Amino acid sequence: MQRVCFLLKVRQDRLSEYRERHAAVWPEMLAALREAGWRNYSLFCRDDGLLVGYLETQDFAAAKAAMARTDVNARWQAEMAPFFEELDGRPDEGMAPLTELFHLE
Amino acid sequence: MQRVCFLLKVRQDRLSEYRERHAAVWPEMLAALREAGWRNYSLFCRDDGLLVGYLETQDFAAAKAAMARTDVNARWQAEMAPFFEELDGRPDEGMAPLTELFHLE
Repeated sequence: MQRVCFLLKVRQDRLSEYRERHAAVWPEMLAALREAGWRNYSLFCRDDGLLVGYLETQDFAAAKAAMARTDVNARWQAEMAPFFEELDGRPDEGMAPLTELFHLE
Repeated sequence: MQRVCFLLKVRQDRLSEYRERHAAVWPEMLAALREAGWRNYSLFCRDDGLLVGYLETQDFAAAKAAMARTDVNARWQAEMAPFFEELDGRPDEGMAPLTELFHLE
């Protein structure tokens, strides 16, 4: 099992709307994430819009690829893209994992 | 159960040493964290030294307070303090949690 952490940057002026959207993620999107093996997946934000993602999965590359094959992900990422800074493509393509340097069970 | 995420900043020129130290955390420190209720605790770093902590615990304020009462934590934090930027006191006192805006089990 992999523990994955990634960072993104939400536009500060749209952070409250981003939070509202994530309080009501489409059930079809949640089902697709589960089906693709995303577990214990959280998003945390700092007031300036810095966003931290954490999840557990068997294989993050495979879990991302499985989502990339779904129509619902394409629709969701297209709606989320305008919320982000410093990203050329879709938000999910900017999820570069950080390095885990410590773990305690 | 609370999921907690916090950010710290390690000095980039000391990041490799910080990583080495965290590959060999004192067993007494690990035992103190477990005793204080820190679970599934990971530290992740970005190349520039940005550090993300993630943990699960019943009550983060209580878990921090329980660590603050231990001698081993005082010794560990004193050794870690020079690794950090932009912190007045000990690293563990700068662990301000981010806001969780999304969670999928």
